[in-house]
Amino acid sequence: MTEETPVAAETQESIAEALAKGKLKRVRRILRDLSAAETAELLEQLDEDQQQIVWDQIGDVEEPAILELLDPTLAERLQVNSDDNQLEALLDSEDETDISPIAIVREALEAGRFKRALKVFALLHPSQAAGLLESLPPGERSSIWSRLDSARAGQILVHLREEVAASLALEMSDAELLEAARQLDLDDLVDLIQALPFGPGRQLLLSMDVKKRQQLADMLSYPEDSAGGLMNIDHISVRADVKVGSVLRYLRLLEDLPDHTDKLMVVDRENRYQGVLRLSRLVTSMADELVRDVMDAEFKPLDVLMSSQEVARQFEDLDMLSAAVVSEDGVLLGRITVDDVMDSIRDDSERAIMGMAGLDDEADMFAPILTSTRRRSVWLGCNLITAFLAASVIGQFQGALEQIVALAVLMPVVASMGGIAGSQTLTLVIRGLALGQVDTGNLRVLLGKELGIGTLNGVLWALLVATVAIIWFGDLGIGWVIGLAILINLVCAVLAGLLIPLILRRFGIDPALAGSMVLMAVTDVVGFSSFLGLATLFLI
Amino acid sequence: MTEETPVAAETQESIAEALAKGKLKRVRRILRDLSAAETAELLEQLDEDQQQIVWDQIGDVEEPAILELLDPTLAERLQVNSDDNQLEALLDSEDETDISPIAIVREALEAGRFKRALKVFALLHPSQAAGLLESLPPGERSSIWSRLDSARAGQILVHLREEVAASLALEMSDAELLEAARQLDLDDLVDLIQALPFGPGRQLLLSMDVKKRQQLADMLSYPEDSAGGLMNIDHISVRADVKVGSVLRYLRLLEDLPDHTDKLMVVDRENRYQGVLRLSRLVTSMADELVRDVMDAEFKPLDVLMSSQEVARQFEDLDMLSAAVVSEDGVLLGRITVDDVMDSIRDDSERAIMGMAGLDDEADMFAPILTSTRRRSVWLGCNLITAFLAASVIGQFQGALEQIVALAVLMPVVASMGGIAGSQTLTLVIRGLALGQVDTGNLRVLLGKELGIGTLNGVLWALLVATVAIIWFGDLGIGWVIGLAILINLVCAVLAGLLIPLILRRFGIDPALAGSMVLMAVTDVVGFSSFLGLATLFLI
Repeated sequence: MTEETPVAAETQESIAEALAKGKLKRVRRILRDLSAAETAELLEQLDEDQQQIVWDQIGDVEEPAILELLDPTLAERLQVNSDDNQLEALLDSEDETDISPIAIVREALEAGRFKRALKVFALLHPSQAAGLLESLPPGERSSIWSRLDSARAGQILVHLREEVAASLALEMSDAELLEAARQLDLDDLVDLIQALPFGPGRQLLLSMDVKKRQQLADMLSYPEDSAGGLMNIDHISVRADVKVGSVLRYLRLLEDLPDHTDKLMVVDRENRYQGVLRLSRLVTSMADELVRDVMDAEFKPLDVLMSSQEVARQFEDLDMLSAAVVSEDGVLLGRITVDDVMDSIRDDSERAIMGMAGLDDEADMFAPILTSTRRRSVWLGCNLITAFLAASVIGQFQGALEQIVALAVLMPVVASMGGIAGSQTLTLVIRGLALGQVDTGNLRVLLGKELGIGTLNGVLWALLVATVAIIWFGDLGIGWVIGLAILINLVCAVLAGLLIPLILRRFGIDPALAGSMVLMAVTDVVGFSSFLGLATLFLI
Repeated sequence: MTEETPVAAETQESIAEALAKGKLKRVRRILRDLSAAETAELLEQLDEDQQQIVWDQIGDVEEPAILELLDPTLAERLQVNSDDNQLEALLDSEDETDISPIAIVREALEAGRFKRALKVFALLHPSQAAGLLESLPPGERSSIWSRLDSARAGQILVHLREEVAASLALEMSDAELLEAARQLDLDDLVDLIQALPFGPGRQLLLSMDVKKRQQLADMLSYPEDSAGGLMNIDHISVRADVKVGSVLRYLRLLEDLPDHTDKLMVVDRENRYQGVLRLSRLVTSMADELVRDVMDAEFKPLDVLMSSQEVARQFEDLDMLSAAVVSEDGVLLGRITVDDVMDSIRDDSERAIMGMAGLDDEADMFAPILTSTRRRSVWLGCNLITAFLAASVIGQFQGALEQIVALAVLMPVVASMGGIAGSQTLTLVIRGLALGQVDTGNLRVLLGKELGIGTLNGVLWALLVATVAIIWFGDLGIGWVIGLAILINLVCAVLAGLLIPLILRRFGIDPALAGSMVLMAVTDVVGFSSFLGLATLFLI
C-alpha cells in the first residue's frame, strides 16, 4: 500500500445506502469515480457479503490494480469466491426457477464483468454458445464476439442462424475470419461461405490454399439442400482386396478417426463405390479375412443430387449413422453423417413452423426493427388482400346488413368455424403429402372420409349455433339460415383443405407456407356469402 | 392341353374392345366368367402387348391352372415379364409423375393380385412399409396385414402410428402377436405394449419368459418421454482394467455387435458407469493398452429421468451417436442411440404441427368417420366459444352497426390484421421458449423490439387501410376510425403474442397447442371493440 487516500465518508455512506437498496447500478456509478486505492480502502471497510457484491461490480480492467492494493487474504478470498464452480452449477441446473444463462451473461456485461460473461461461453458447447449468443441483443452480442478467440469463434459460427452468422463474420477482420475458418470442417466451411454476402464469401474462399479452394469449389457447386450440400469429404476409404489386418494397421497409423466414423468406404482402383465396411464388423473379424468378405456390398450409396428431405427420410427409414455419397457414375465423393441430417431435420421443421406465420427461420430475433417490420409486412400485405376480398363480399350484402343487424353480429362465427374445420383437413393433407402418404392413389378415399367428417361436424355445429342464435335473437329464421350457412361452409372448408395443398403443389408453391392463408380466404368468402346470401334470399 | 374349348367369338371381341378402350375392370369381369382353358386359349390368340395386360388382370388363385395349359414359352415369358424388376424400378423411381406405391398396391388389390401387392411390401424397408400401410383404407390394410408373416409384421408394427399399430395388433391372434413381438428389440417392444390397449398389452407382457418380462417391467416403469423410455439395454459393457486385445477377442466371440454400436460402455465391478470406449478409438489402439487409458471418461451419461426433449437437445448439441443412461446413483442401465432420438425429434415436430390444428399425430388418417368427427369437434367447440365471445362484443355495438353499415363490412379487416401480426410474434416467442432463447433475461429487449415492429406496421397498414376505406365509402371519419383501430389492434396483438405463451406456460399449458386460439380471441375482441367502440364515440 503505497499511498493512503481516505475515502470520503459520504462516498462510503452512499455505497452502503445503495447496497441496502440493492441498487447495483448506482454502486457501479460511484465506483467509477474512485481511484484504485480508494476502491481498495472502501472494500476493506465493508463486511464480507458487501465486499463480494461490490467486488462483482468492478470491471476486468480495474481488477489487477485494486487486487495489488488489497490485503492478500482478502484478495484471495474475493478471487476464489468469484464464480467458476458456482457458474458451472448454475449452468448445469435444470431448475427453471434458477437464473438463466441469458440473464447471467447480460448481468455480467452490464456490470462490466466481461471475464464472467466469457466464462459462461467457455463452459458451453459451441452449439449452446451459439444459441446463447443469438439470445443477446446485438450490442452485447458484438461485445462478447469481439473477445472470443478465433478458434472458438469458428466453432460457434457454424451453429448460428445465417443472418446472425453473416453479421458477426463481417465484424471480424479478414485475418480473424480466415483464422476462424481454418478450424472448420469442409462442410461447415461451405455453409459459412454460403451464409456470407457474396464479396466476403469470395474473399474467404480465395484466401484458402489451392487444394482446399478446389475442394470447396467442388462442394459449393451442389445445391445447399442436396446430398452434395450435406456431405463432407472426411471419409476413410479402403480397397476390397486387402486384409482386415492391414486395414487395422492402417487405422492405427491414423491414430484418430474423423468424428462419427462408424464405417469405412470400400472403393475400387478408380475410386468407384463398392460397399461399406462397418467398424462393428471390423472389430469382430479375423485379421486374415479379406475386406471383400466382410464388407456390406448391399448398402446403397446416396446420389449426390438427392434432395436433403429424401436424404433425411432414408436416414430415418434405414436407421443409418452415415452413408456414402456418389456421383452419377458411381464415384465416391464423400459421406453424410447423421448429425448433419439431424440438423437438417430440425431446420426443416423449424422452417415449416416459422413459415406458416410468414417468418424466416434464419433471421435474427434481434434484427433492427425497421428490417423486421419490412419482412413481416409482406405477410400482413398478403393477408390484407384476402381481408379486403372478404370485406368486398360483405359489401355486396349491405342491404341485408342494414335491415338485420344480427347478421353482422353472427357472421364472424360462420367464417371462423369454417376456418378451423378447413385447417384441420389442410394440416392432415400437408403432412400426408410430405410423408408421401397422400397421393392420387388414395385421394378419393380420403376425400370421401373428409367430406363425411365435414358433413357430420357441419350438422352438429349447425344445430348448436342455430339454437344459440334463435335464443339470442328470438328469431327462427336467423337460426336456420346460420345453421345452413355453417353446414355449407364446413363442407366447403373440408373440400378446400383437401384441394388447396394439391393445387398449390401443382404450381410449385409450398402448401405449408401459403396453404392456410388461401384457405382462410376461401372459408371467409364462402362463410360470409352463404350466410348473407341465404339471409337476403329468405329473410328479407 | 387336355381339352379344346373354343372361346366364343363375342368374348374375344369384347375383350379386344375393352382393351382398346383401356377398360381393365371390364376385362377382369369377362375373365372371371371364363374357365382356365378358355382363358389360356384367349391369351394365345392375343398379340404380345395385349397378352401381358390381360395376364396382369388374372388373380393369383387362377394363375397356376392357366399356366399349365399355356404354351411353355408363352408361360415363361408372361411370368418373367410380370413384375419384380419393373416393380423395383417403379419403387426406386423418384419421378413424381410415375405411379405411386399406394396406387400400385391398391390397383393390385383391386385386381385380386395379392402376390403383386405383397411383393411391393417385401421390397420396402419396414418403416416405408409401415407408411404405405397407413396410406391404405382400413379394409385393404387388413387384407394385406393378414398375409404378412409374423417376423415382418413385428418389424412393421413398431413403425406404425399408435392407433394403427393397436388396431392391427388386435387383428392378430395371440400366437401371431407373440411371434411378431419376439422379433423386436426391447425398446420397440416397450413401445408396442404401450400402444396396445391395457388387456392385450398385459397379455403380451405375461406371455414373455421370466427374464424378458422382468426387463420389460423395468423399462415400462419409466415415462414414455424420458431417457428411460427411449433407452435400450443392448449395450456392451467392459471393465476399465482389461487390455484392448482382450476386448477385441471378446467382441470377436460375439461375432455381430448390436446395431448402432459406436462405443462400448466402461463400468466398474458394481456396474457403475466409468466412461465410454469408442470403436474408432478401439481400432486405432494397440492390443496391450489398457481400456482405462484409451477410454473417454469425460463423456457424460444421461440421467434415466431426463426428458426426451432434453435428450434430443444433448444429442444435437454434442453430436452424439449413442449415450449411456444411468440411474441416480450412477449405475449403467442402458443406452440411447441416435436413430431413436431422430424418431423422437420427428415425432415432436409432427406433434407440434398437428397439435396447432387440434389434431392427434398418432391417430389413424383413415379412422372411422364417427371417431374422427368426435375428435375434431373438440377443437371446433373451443373455437366456437371464442367465436361467440367475439360475436358478443359485436353485439354490444348493434346501434352503431345499424346506423353505419360500412362498419360491418370493414370490421373483419381490423380483426384479421391483428391476428396475423400477433401470430408472428407468437410463433417467434414459442420457438424462443422451446430453444431456451427467450426468458426473463431478455424479455424486455424483445418486448421493446416487438412493440416497435407492431407500432411501425400498425402505422403503415393503418394509413393504407384508412385510405382504401375513405375511397370506398367516401367518408373521412370512417377512415381515421379504422386506421386508429388497426394501430391499436396491432400493438395489442404483438403484446398478446408475447405474453400469451409465457402465461400459458406458467399454467403448464403447451403454448404451441392453445396459443393461437387464445391469441385469436384476443385480437378479435380487441379488433372489434376498438373499431366499433371508436366509431360509436366519434361517428354517431
